[in-house]
Amino acid sequence: MNETIQTILGHRSIRKFKERPLSNEEINTIIEAASRASTSSFMMAYSIIGIDDASVKSKLAKISGQSYVEHNGHLFVFCADLNKVGLLASPEEKQQINENVENTEHFLVATIDAALAAQNACLAAEGIGLGVCYIGSIRNDIKTVDQLLGLPDHVIPLFGLAVGEPDHDPQPKPRLPKEAFYFKNKYIESASLQKEIEHFDQGVNDYYKKRSENKRMDQWSTQMIRKLSTPIRTDVTPFVQSKGLNKK
Amino acid sequence: MNETIQTILGHRSIRKFKERPLSNEEINTIIEAASRASTSSFMMAYSIIGIDDASVKSKLAKISGQSYVEHNGHLFVFCADLNKVGLLASPEEKQQINENVENTEHFLVATIDAALAAQNACLAAEGIGLGVCYIGSIRNDIKTVDQLLGLPDHVIPLFGLAVGEPDHDPQPKPRLPKEAFYFKNKYIESASLQKEIEHFDQGVNDYYKKRSENKRMDQWSTQMIRKLSTPIRTDVTPFVQSKGLNKK
Repeated sequence: MNETIQTILGHRSIRKFKERPLSNEEINTIIEAASRASTSSFMMAYSIIGIDDASVKSKLAKISGQSYVEHNGHLFVFCADLNKVGLLASPEEKQQINENVENTEHFLVATIDAALAAQNACLAAEGIGLGVCYIGSIRNDIKTVDQLLGLPDHVIPLFGLAVGEPDHDPQPKPRLPKEAFYFKNKYIESASLQKEIEHFDQGVNDYYKKRSENKRMDQWSTQMIRKLSTPIRTDVTPFVQSKGLNKK
Repeated sequence: MNETIQTILGHRSIRKFKERPLSNEEINTIIEAASRASTSSFMMAYSIIGIDDASVKSKLAKISGQSYVEHNGHLFVFCADLNKVGLLASPEEKQQINENVENTEHFLVATIDAALAAQNACLAAEGIGLGVCYIGSIRNDIKTVDQLLGLPDHVIPLFGLAVGEPDHDPQPKPRLPKEAFYFKNKYIESASLQKEIEHFDQGVNDYYKKRSENKRMDQWSTQMIRKLSTPIRTDVTPFVQSKGLNKK
């Protein structure tokens, strides 16, 4: 199997890193890789904030509730950024382009651009032997993160990416079987999808009983329903709109 | 340089493919790679529709206006999918979890999940010598694509990915310089960002004058402002909400 495929299939999230900071060369490789991802209509509608300031890291760790946000080799925050496309526009042009910049279509464009860049960063890091963990939990208090990073209008923080030398060796997590996420020409019938998911639920239960760390009983469906039963991050909706995105 | 980094840095979008259909083995490698991407809270909130039905391909090509949507080795459509997380929920549970499923936070979760999976698919394809092109233009008529693929509530098509054996050899496109997308601890001052973009604009002009195919005069900022001056895909906003996403 070739190395690229091996890197991709070998992924597991690392949540404990050695304290060694990434070298500038490592950081440069990761962000150059990020920048080579495809981008919608050449918009490059994202920015990356590299965090090495200990006090900023500590604040982000408190917000996310995860110690590896503070203790890692380097922390990146990926942002959806539609500020740059209009930066050299005249006031009249700005007003005109904001019909697009502020709608859901371009919120999608910027979010997808940022995520594609992030996944390149992730695989580049793993390709040079480092481990990574995405941190969606910076959205636990997205407004404070936004202020901390000084993001202007039309820019919002989406997620963090902690990178560093792995200091544990977790197993890869199970994934839905192919039959439950890959469909030919048309979406699967609901009854067939239910069967696939019931089957997967049993497999997840086995994984949680057997894994080396943090053993428990659980199934995927019950876990999802439990997690989603309490309203989560309800301030994201008004926050995003307050920054001039997803409001039209 | 290792092979993973080489694959990532070597990316350029391929818009002309040989007619050879992908083998099942190639398709399986690509979708297995997609499934190994990180996913927010284990949600795996995406689905992939593989399109090999010529009439579906032809309809999607008309919507996107791109011939390579029809002529390629295989076509994938990546969907944000929050249908599965609630599939085994009781009616009462469904009502409860919909407060989350239908808000902007989880619209972000599903969009990011789908994009991370897609970028893994893209690099896996490139890693085995194939070329790819993302197709955001299926959103030119997102409602028709949605109906064509039979997507249920809480599932929407985001973008296509055409994959196949390259039949041309385009140059990689320029990218914003590091100084315009990577910032340390805080977002860059507006005046500095303006200077970086003005400098990049000049570089893009040189690229368009020199490239082998489709030479022209253009700058990045003027191109972006021109493109964004006419309202684009304004039906995406009501469509997404009509599918029960991004509405709370």
